[in-house]
Amino acid sequence: MAATPITPYLRVDLDVLRRNVRRVADWTRAHQVALRPHAKTHKTPQIAALQLAAGAVGLTVATIGEAEVFARHGVTDLLIAYPLWVDATAAARLGDLAARATLAVAVESTEGAANLGRHLGGVADVEVVVEVDSGQHRTGCRPHEAGRSAAIAARAGLRVRGVMTFPGHSYSPGLGAAAGQDEATALAAAAASLRGAGIEPRVLSGGSTPSLRGSRMDTVTELRPGVYVFGDAQQWELGTCGPEDIALTCRATVVSHAGGRLVLDAGSKALGADRAAYSSGWGRLPAHPTARVVSLSEHHALVQLRDEPLPPIGAQVDVVPNHVCAAVNLADELWVGDRTGTDRWAVAARGRNA
Amino acid sequence: MAATPITPYLRVDLDVLRRNVRRVADWTRAHQVALRPHAKTHKTPQIAALQLAAGAVGLTVATIGEAEVFARHGVTDLLIAYPLWVDATAAARLGDLAARATLAVAVESTEGAANLGRHLGGVADVEVVVEVDSGQHRTGCRPHEAGRSAAIAARAGLRVRGVMTFPGHSYSPGLGAAAGQDEATALAAAAASLRGAGIEPRVLSGGSTPSLRGSRMDTVTELRPGVYVFGDAQQWELGTCGPEDIALTCRATVVSHAGGRLVLDAGSKALGADRAAYSSGWGRLPAHPTARVVSLSEHHALVQLRDEPLPPIGAQVDVVPNHVCAAVNLADELWVGDRTGTDRWAVAARGRNA
Repeated sequence: MAATPITPYLRVDLDVLRRNVRRVADWTRAHQVALRPHAKTHKTPQIAALQLAAGAVGLTVATIGEAEVFARHGVTDLLIAYPLWVDATAAARLGDLAARATLAVAVESTEGAANLGRHLGGVADVEVVVEVDSGQHRTGCRPHEAGRSAAIAARAGLRVRGVMTFPGHSYSPGLGAAAGQDEATALAAAAASLRGAGIEPRVLSGGSTPSLRGSRMDTVTELRPGVYVFGDAQQWELGTCGPEDIALTCRATVVSHAGGRLVLDAGSKALGADRAAYSSGWGRLPAHPTARVVSLSEHHALVQLRDEPLPPIGAQVDVVPNHVCAAVNLADELWVGDRTGTDRWAVAARGRNA
Repeated sequence: MAATPITPYLRVDLDVLRRNVRRVADWTRAHQVALRPHAKTHKTPQIAALQLAAGAVGLTVATIGEAEVFARHGVTDLLIAYPLWVDATAAARLGDLAARATLAVAVESTEGAANLGRHLGGVADVEVVVEVDSGQHRTGCRPHEAGRSAAIAARAGLRVRGVMTFPGHSYSPGLGAAAGQDEATALAAAAASLRGAGIEPRVLSGGSTPSLRGSRMDTVTELRPGVYVFGDAQQWELGTCGPEDIALTCRATVVSHAGGRLVLDAGSKALGADRAAYSSGWGRLPAHPTARVVSLSEHHALVQLRDEPLPPIGAQVDVVPNHVCAAVNLADELWVGDRTGTDRWAVAARGRNA
């Protein structure tokens, strides 16, 4: 049990969190697809433990630093889903990790595959997964070229686990299901490309929270959603979750009514500054459905309400961040509660960008 | 001396930092105006020490938590430039701070002034400064109403130091000088309002980095710029500084050429996600003037170059964040160097939102 802090601070409803963890775990299990949740969303060992207890095969992370934190907390199966360019320092850290956990790293370009092979081939037990682009157009080689990077890695002495993609174009209203189809098409083509290079892929890995229900379970063997554990205003506005599924909010205090608006003490340093093209503002207030965060600075959120009186100065309200991964990465701890009490969980991998 | 980390990480050019600190300190001294830099920008005790050594009268901070960190590091004069709504916990923390440092807090609404007086009037040696709106339309009461909040605070036993404003509408191309004029007009009206309530203001406090050179030095008695120590892409694009004045960059590695663009390993978790309406992208690359960060996700920056070859995969480049306050608040430490070597400075007040 812990005393309540002054605002702003991040609160987690543990019942909702547990329900979200369980729902996706049960669904992937029913479809005999492995779940490897992306832990960049929560960066919190206790939440990783809930996911693994519910049946996740391991974790996905974005950086070596995140992998180190989770390995230190006992996680034994980690995928760094990022096309790392390693130097001697990074290679040594990956070698240490591989000695403690089953470790895989994304490769994408032929240059990246060669570089990883140069540093780690025959040295450390690191598997590679070839990242392909399925329509987000961020990173990932073209699916039919996946075999080239795979072959380079294999020749350098790295084992190739399979192929992966992040169908991030699912982050657009109505495109979740189409992104799931694109994901399957790209992964199937990438797998064929690996086979053409004489490499049999064991894993076809996809997943994002908005595309999850559109995943082609006859094609993917593994899914890597992250945000589903908490939900956020983006997922709410994309229709991926309802407000009742949102496990994390920022508790804030009304500090002013200047300009006829609510001014809250939770700004971009608490909520994050992300705002997608489809977002209706910089955050939502579940208790005030018409409320929109119409302006955000570092320590102020300006909230416009429609047809309802302003909560008084001094009142506390809950704000759902647009993008929960960004909000969590700003906080050193989460205030986690259910009916039995409240506890503080350290965001142990916060800020581990490298 | 410290070994170089893997990317991404924040680097500070100590020579440029010292020059920025000195330039503004010399200029305010020449005009006999007090300088109280906003430390939310750097959150770093060593940088506060440079500012105080150059003649700053004290620091401005945004939160009680920031004030506590700087007080612990020996800063003895602190203004919390935020209209706090205090409860018993916050009041106790302010009382502890006031016992160690000269402390002032912003008040704005009459409700906020009454609440602060209820908790601290006659109890702790906390001064108040009445915040007024000079055109940003975020917080601040109307200048001619400043006397009302001042009188309530005074009647509750709090000493009133004066009036303040943040002319944040300076963050728009070409509006810096006009914002400086608005600031002076608002502060003069607010001072008159206090006098009407029988309270003589000792301080008329303004300042933002883009309005700095437009400040009416015959009116303001104190300025509170923050970003000037580092500069950033926003200041560069507003014309407040040139690229040669930028002291902080994010060192990043090229991890891909997907889509014919540079993909860097510094995303929104390293650079911050701020993007003003006038920004040309999510960050700038000083060594590549045509480069624009055209897309940003948590661990990827997509950079478009015009009429120049892409630096190779594996190359390191420096990125100037749009908004340096946001970038610094994501990092646990800064890598600070000059010709004599490199050191690590802890961002000691990082994440102290409350």
